Amino acid sequence: MDRAPTIKDVAERAGVHAATASRALNPATRGMVNVRTANRVAEAARALGYAPNSAARSLRTRTSSVAGIIVPDLRNPVFPPIVRGIEDGLREAGYLALVGNTDGDPERERELLTAMRGRQTAGFILATSRRGDSFAGGPAVPTVLVNRRTDDGDTPSVTADNAAGVHLLVRHLVDLGHTRIGHVAGPRDLSTGWERYRAFLDATTSLGLEPAAAPVEFADAFTEPAGHAATLRLFAEHPGLTAVLAGNDLIALACYSALAELGRSVPGDVSVTGFNDMPFVDRQRPALTTVRLPHYEIGREAARLLLERIASPTAPAKRVVLPVELVRRDSTGPAKV
Amino acid sequence: MDRAPTIKDVAERAGVHAATASRALNPATRGMVNVRTANRVAEAARALGYAPNSAARSLRTRTSSVAGIIVPDLRNPVFPPIVRGIEDGLREAGYLALVGNTDGDPERERELLTAMRGRQTAGFILATSRRGDSFAGGPAVPTVLVNRRTDDGDTPSVTADNAAGVHLLVRHLVDLGHTRIGHVAGPRDLSTGWERYRAFLDATTSLGLEPAAAPVEFADAFTEPAGHAATLRLFAEHPGLTAVLAGNDLIALACYSALAELGRSVPGDVSVTGFNDMPFVDRQRPALTTVRLPHYEIGREAARLLLERIASPTAPAKRVVLPVELVRRDSTGPAKV
Repeated sequence: MDRAPTIKDVAERAGVHAATASRALNPATRGMVNVRTANRVAEAARALGYAPNSAARSLRTRTSSVAGIIVPDLRNPVFPPIVRGIEDGLREAGYLALVGNTDGDPERERELLTAMRGRQTAGFILATSRRGDSFAGGPAVPTVLVNRRTDDGDTPSVTADNAAGVHLLVRHLVDLGHTRIGHVAGPRDLSTGWERYRAFLDATTSLGLEPAAAPVEFADAFTEPAGHAATLRLFAEHPGLTAVLAGNDLIALACYSALAELGRSVPGDVSVTGFNDMPFVDRQRPALTTVRLPHYEIGREAARLLLERIASPTAPAKRVVLPVELVRRDSTGPAKV
Repeated sequence: MDRAPTIKDVAERAGVHAATASRALNPATRGMVNVRTANRVAEAARALGYAPNSAARSLRTRTSSVAGIIVPDLRNPVFPPIVRGIEDGLREAGYLALVGNTDGDPERERELLTAMRGRQTAGFILATSRRGDSFAGGPAVPTVLVNRRTDDGDTPSVTADNAAGVHLLVRHLVDLGHTRIGHVAGPRDLSTGWERYRAFLDATTSLGLEPAAAPVEFADAFTEPAGHAATLRLFAEHPGLTAVLAGNDLIALACYSALAELGRSVPGDVSVTGFNDMPFVDRQRPALTTVRLPHYEIGREAARLLLERIASPTAPAKRVVLPVELVRRDSTGPAKV
């Protein structure tokens, strides 16, 4: 046909009333139609290429089947599996995903949030929050934080168990005989950087290391250049360290190159650990000992939490923390005596 | 204020008529307002947190400020920089990006297209097309293909110069003295697999290799498991090869592991080349010789083409091919004699 197919065309082809066809095609009312009829209507809609006009529906009901995902930069290898998990979780509930990148710029984040709200976005999942942020999605728009969270705990969040991961790594290094362990930490204003740093202090203290034997240097960002500079600063002050716990895998790779510059071998002279288990760190030389985060599951869980939040916006803000796992590879070895 | 700000609030704050404020905030009519007024209105809108109700505008004008991006799987390292480039290009024109994954399933692709069309999506950028596809976005919805294209050329596309990349690699191997070069090709039904395969035949022929000295084995997918199996098949038939041109970087990494199983060293016994220069292949042992594709620029260019297409839907379908670059690293060396 020359014009776009309408709900009446679909109903006619399926042999049902238009109201039945409409109910069958709306996820919110599909349960009112019997399954075989619903399938027949769906088949007719597909055959005709019928696209329900959800802009019209959105205006009538003020709800939407779109959610917004905002990340710092999709090219950081941590985010693709998280975004994929979110998209899979949203799609099963009939939601489409708007995706935006901020490069960590709060102004760009505000612009994206405004533009997405203007599209009747039903809720937001943000991977961009800083510890000091208060509400991010704006009042009355359901929002879930993923990977990072804020200090106040007012917004639901899904993160990995950063503290447990650091404890596993420190325990692993101490078991290998290391007694002088440095930490190249991520930025303090991000929960990931802060929680791992706090856990490093806790773990080294509880395992009997003196603070002077567990020095910390902060990288300005979770990147290789920032990690490289911080590693050089750490070893300039503390040349006797035999192990480095890096704030994430990118910083760990920067430790490799910084230590090579200093003429130290890994793990012969210095053991190095990462955090994230991002793709291909098992293929580095040496293969990186790290902590594996369930990034895809973190995304799925964030989608689930957002859907819960949309259904009951005033329910208490859950904080979901998913378990992590130590992955021992070749970048850690016995302490050099 | 307790209620959401309206266009009248914005106009009042900016000291202009509501109609002027409305024009200034609509990308389609902004040119009718002088620049300083437009900036003042934008500033007022930002200060008040005004979100234009684009669902209402969408219904009136049947246009939209959303475009759909569909990829096989964001977790494939090729796609994040492409999607990021698209998103940056779209955003500068005031468009938001809906993103969906299909895992190569045509049924899921149809569902996504239908759902996105139902949201008044202004156009699509598809990274999922197969050579035999005819139109993907449905009639009357502007569509651009990215990374892959269809054989018929009816749809605008942005791809890398696959043929030139293969010629660079074959020339590089021949210059190193290789005379028996195998190709572990990607799937024939994808333009990326097909174009590289055809270019391999052309390049080896034009450089004087007999077909028997340039055998080809097809991998079922551009993945490590498929590449591993195909490499083993290739060497079972042709044990005397001294070089392998892999269909992409993941297949090249699979060549490393398959050759290690066969007791062959890289590049001592066999040189290996990749395609894409995905992140971290410079860190593999040996660092991978490959062809660098401008993935981010491919995405930007696709966004530009889509915006052109939205502005003039019946303009001829452009095919943009971006240049590639040989990156010599350690996985290729002189032919063993």
